[in-house]
Order: sequence, then structure tokens, then C-alpha cells
Amino acid sequence: MNQMIERVKTSSQKEKPSVDALGFGKYFSDYMFTMDYETEKGWHSPKITPYEPLVLDPSAMVFHYGQAVFEGLKAYRTDDGKALLFRPLKNIKRLNLSCERMSIPTLDEDLVMDAIHQLVELEKDWIPNGEGTSLYIRPFIIATEPYLGVRPSHSYKFMVILSPVGAYYSGQLNPVKIYVEDYYVRAVPGGVGHVKTSGNYAASLKAQNNAEELGFEQVLWLDAKEKKYIEEVGSMNIFFKINGEVITPKLNGSILSGITRDSVIELLKHWDVPVREERISLEDIFKAHANGDLEEVFGSGTAAVISPVGELKWGNESITVNDNKIGQLSFQIYDTITKIQLGRADDPFNWTFEV
Amino acid sequence: MNQMIERVKTSSQKEKPSVDALGFGKYFSDYMFTMDYETEKGWHSPKITPYEPLVLDPSAMVFHYGQAVFEGLKAYRTDDGKALLFRPLKNIKRLNLSCERMSIPTLDEDLVMDAIHQLVELEKDWIPNGEGTSLYIRPFIIATEPYLGVRPSHSYKFMVILSPVGAYYSGQLNPVKIYVEDYYVRAVPGGVGHVKTSGNYAASLKAQNNAEELGFEQVLWLDAKEKKYIEEVGSMNIFFKINGEVITPKLNGSILSGITRDSVIELLKHWDVPVREERISLEDIFKAHANGDLEEVFGSGTAAVISPVGELKWGNESITVNDNKIGQLSFQIYDTITKIQLGRADDPFNWTFEV
Ligand SMILES: Cc1ncc(COP(=O)(O)O)c(C=O)c1O
Ligand SMILES: Cc1ncc(COP(=O)(O)O)c(C=O)c1O
Repeated sequence: MNQMIERVKTSSQKEKPSVDALGFGKYFSDYMFTMDYETEKGWHSPKITPYEPLVLDPSAMVFHYGQAVFEGLKAYRTDDGKALLFRPLKNIKRLNLSCERMSIPTLDEDLVMDAIHQLVELEKDWIPNGEGTSLYIRPFIIATEPYLGVRPSHSYKFMVILSPVGAYYSGQLNPVKIYVEDYYVRAVPGGVGHVKTSGNYAASLKAQNNAEELGFEQVLWLDAKEKKYIEEVGSMNIFFKINGEVITPKLNGSILSGITRDSVIELLKHWDVPVREERISLEDIFKAHANGDLEEVFGSGTAAVISPVGELKWGNESITVNDNKIGQLSFQIYDTITKIQLGRADDPFNWTFEV
Repeated sequence: MNQMIERVKTSSQKEKPSVDALGFGKYFSDYMFTMDYETEKGWHSPKITPYEPLVLDPSAMVFHYGQAVFEGLKAYRTDDGKALLFRPLKNIKRLNLSCERMSIPTLDEDLVMDAIHQLVELEKDWIPNGEGTSLYIRPFIIATEPYLGVRPSHSYKFMVILSPVGAYYSGQLNPVKIYVEDYYVRAVPGGVGHVKTSGNYAASLKAQNNAEELGFEQVLWLDAKEKKYIEEVGSMNIFFKINGEVITPKLNGSILSGITRDSVIELLKHWDVPVREERISLEDIFKAHANGDLEEVFGSGTAAVISPVGELKWGNESITVNDNKIGQLSFQIYDTITKIQLGRADDPFNWTFEV
């Protein structure tokens, strides 16, 4: 079943950027993984090759009809020099879910796991050393057939590229200011918001830009039908701590099923903190705040792990959460997950995977 | 204001495909137009060059976050050998509308007009000769910056490529069988359905595939909120003739504003046929059919101009329209628009543009 992954050696290695210069997604390592698909052959020719440009016909379908899906996960360097991945199989399964929705042929999970494993092992030196840094792993698939008819492509390319990334927070976790978007929407049930396809992100840019111009860091998305219920914030899932209980929007077909979200829920259960997934109206959140019951708000995602929310602006109303300081539970979750990711804490859930 | 368009000559010309082999969007001409954008320079370096592959970094933003918009129009060969475009300025204006929604810098309309003009003139021999054939013109823009952060790209490429295409109908207009999709949705107000961005088409593939497997040619999309109101069919707008009156769904923020749709409306007004744009529930269409009032149904779009609908299936119900034959008005519209496009009839609206 398992196909052999061919290797092509690079003739020149890049200089690695300094930790301070890293930022996010600007630098790429020396190698990449590629695999091709044609209808008659299925997925074939898995290869690790030098990182190099793609050559595509201008009519390649990805440019026109947007068949493209991706994932994002990270490799972390432990204090004793090992490389750890965090729940990689979850990303691979979600990639296949994205494929199914977007009419892209699914991948063999074991092969993708092997590909990521081999690539990260080969590029281990690219995992940066500074606190909070990591090697971002970006698997993605694009439609490559040169054809302008609207139908699923007959050829695809799957790739994995690696980017060393800096710390999301310099120093402590900074609470973010969130703008509630009530005109633009991100997704709707029956659409594609529950999967990681490129078009979702393009559709979100305008609202994100508007929010930034108004001085906010992220957008809170409401449901497309009634503009009443909370979906996500930016590219993160969102949690609320109200009166000792934690709630997060239920997966309803338009919300991405975040792996960090899942980890937060498991962790809270493990700690016997009450946690529920349910439909949450923004009005109820504002009411809880008015009653003094809204204790903490935070986003969850691979990029920042936990992102405390300090302010929520909705139309003419604005509320400040927990005095614009990071909440105790938010910090505890952040601290525990990052320690597990770095191999500094026990991993009772078997979340980490050593490369 | 107008930038000079540079020319690079090709060293080899392709053989032109035979008219029978054309199909849609499979062959491309010898030249293409390209223009680049960087934040500091704006749109620059407009060029007509040999048709050639694009070389892009694997991290180019279009592959990941789907910032991509496009247009589609046609050049027609008249009986006396001239080349005519149909309402090209409408496409250029719609492209800029798509840019605005997708946070892509807009283009200078005159320059794009000039680019299309010059390119089609140079490639005039690529306009095929057979009845119903034309040269399909595909302007498009993609985000090219090598960067994985979610924000608008700082660099883009605008291109125009040309594809000789065959007749949509072999012989007479064939009524199509339509499947009403009541699970998947195409678009929602506040989203991006009203513009031509790649993600809309990727999102539509699964439903289209399902319909084909059930023996239908196209999908009829309902509104995402209530699944009650008619939006579009496949990649066409839709019209209903009921009791002598023509109605089409009102542009509501999730429907594409088709140029053929606009032409049909203008034509009907010119003919004093009552025509209205309004919200239309599918139930009302089925009722009109039950009462014997539903006379004709047809789709409108650049590809087929007019596509008569012979059957509509919604859940367990199915209706046949006009005995599955093309309606008289549908044919008259088709006949008039195609004759104007080919320079065979008067053009009282000034729709055609000679190259
Ligand atoms: C839209 C969206 N929501 C939520 C998330 C968080 O998901 P995860 O925790 O798997 O990174 C992401 C990022 O992947 C995202 O793109
Ligand atoms: C979704 C959609 N609706 C309608 C149309 C019809 O538009 P036009 O008449 O401008 O070709 C198209 C094709 O461009 C389309 O892609």
C-alpha cells in the first residue's frame, strides 16, 4: 500500500533567518514534498525535492475555479532537541474532509503522515530555537489541469512546505480587540465554511481590513442567516467563560472544527471544568457581561494557541472583558497546551508525535 | 494615463485545432496579455507575450487564500470577416467590482479595454470559422506574493488568455433538465456570490456532480437562508415566462449580475414584453405550472447565451416545461442576441464593439 517516497537532493542550502526576523510564513526551508494526481493514475510519484517554483499553465484550474484546500500544523523543538508534532493525524483527516467537500480526490493518510514525518526529519535544523518559535507545516492541494470548463479538475498537485515562524506573542499574551462584523459573512451551512478551502480566506479579507482600519485586531463572525449567533473570530474558534462554565459555538456546518478547539474541550473535561458546545447568541454574551457573569473570552487556533479577547465591539456598544487582562483559565489552558507541545509537561492524551 | 503595451514576439505558432475538436476551454492561442502589481509600483509592465507557463512560488497566496477573480466574454467573427466583442466594458466594470470585494487593486478600465482590443486583433486568426463558434476571452487576476499570513497580497498578476471554442449547441437548442439543490448552497448575502471569484465555482462542484449523477444537467440554486427563493441555475441567470410576463430573480447580493441577463431584460423592454426583477419562490413557479401558467423557463449566460429549461426536479416533484420544447420567446431572444453578436442584425443598443 505504502508508496516509496523518492528523494532529490538539493545542491545549495539557504541560510537560515535569525530568530528575530522570522515573523510568520515569510521564509521557507530547503525541501518540499510533492505528489501528483491524474484521473487514470490516482495519486502518484511522491517525492521530496528541493524547494522550487511551480510551473503551471495560465489556464490551470486553481487560478479560475479555486479548487484548493490546505492545512496548518507545527513542529516544535523540545529542550532536549527532539522534534514534536501536535495531533498531526487530526490535520490529515481534516484535509481529507476538505477534499471531499471540494471534489478533490482524497489522500492516503498513512502516506501523508509518512511524508510529513520524513520531510520534517530531513529539515529538523529548520525548527528554530527561540522561545515560542516553531516550524510551520503547510500541506496543500491545488487543481492543475489546463482547462476552463467548470467541473472538478482531472489533475492535482499535493505539496507540503515548511516555514520557520517566530513567537506569536512577544512577552506575555496580549488581549485582542474584536470587531463584530454584522454586514459581511464568512460562511453558511450548505457552503464550505466547515472546511479549509482557499476561497473562505479570500472572502474574509475585506471585513478583516475594515476592522483593522477601525483599530481592531480581529473580526467576530456571526451566522449568515440571522446575524445573531456567534461563529468564529478571525481564523480562530472562540470560547466564553460565564459564571464558571465554558461555552463554545457548536459545530453547525459553517464553523471550522479547530484542532486547538478540540484540545481545549478535552483539557477542560480532564480538569472537570464544565464545558458545553451550543448555539450562542451575541446578545446573551452582552447580557452576561451586563450581569457581571462574563469572566473570560478567548480564541483558539494553531497560530497563537490561545488568544485572550479584551474588548468586543458590536454596533455602538462595546464591552471590556476581564479588565482587558488575560484570564486565569485562559492562561492555564495556554500554558498547559504549549507545555505539552514542547514536551515540558505530561501528555495524558497522547497528543504529541515524535519525529 | 494610458500605459504603452509592450510586445514580445513568439518564435513558433501553434497549429489551430479543427472546428470539430474545439469544445470549450481546451485550446489556447499563441499570445497572452500580462500585467503585474506591487504595492509600491501599482499596476505596471503591461505586455503581450507568447502564451507560456506561469512560474510561481509554492507559497504564492492564490494557492492558499484564493484571492482570484475572473471574467468571460467572447469575440465573434462576422460574415464579412470582422471581429466583434459583445459589451466588453460591462465585463471590465464587473471585474473591478470583483476586485473591490476581494481586496484586489482595481484596474484602469481603458487600459484593460486596450489590452483586450490589441490582443484579439493580434490573434484574429484564432477566431474560429464554424457556425456558433467564437474566441473565448478570459481576463483574470491572481495573488502572487509568496507569503502565508492571511491578509491581502502585496503583488498580483493580471492576465488575458484566449481560447477558441466550439458551438454550445450542435444543431438546435436543447432544453436542459434541472435539479433543484436543497442542501448545498452557492452564496449568501454578505458573502461573495455577486462577484466572479474562483471560490464560488469550487464551492459549486459537489452539488453539480450530484445532479449529474442523478441524470440532470444543471443545478438550480436556492437562497441560503430559507431555501425558498430562486437564485441562479449552474453558471447562468434564470428567467420564467408566466402568463405572458417574464420574471427573473432580483439582484440581492448573492446573485451574479449577468451581462446576458441584462441584455435579455433590455431586449424585452425594447419589445414591450413585460419583464420584472423580483424575489421568486420556487413554490410559486410550481403553482404557476399547476395552473397551466408557466410558459417558458430559460437560463442566460455568455457560454450558451440562452439555455431553455425542459424539466425541473424539486424533491419528489418534477415538472415539465413547455412539453420539453424550446419556447417561442426563448428562441426569439436567442436568435436576436446571437445575430447582434455576429453582426447579422441591427444593434440598436450599441452592444457590439468592433476590434
Ligand atoms: C477559519 C478557521 N477557524 C479556526 C481555526 C483554528 O483551527 P486549528 O485549531 O485547527 O488551527 C482556523 C485555523 O486553522 C481557521 O482557519
Ligand atoms: C455564477 C454565474 N451566474 C451567471 C452567469 C452569467 O453571466 P454572463 O451573462 O455575464 O455570462 C455566469 C457566467 O458568467 C456565472 O458564472
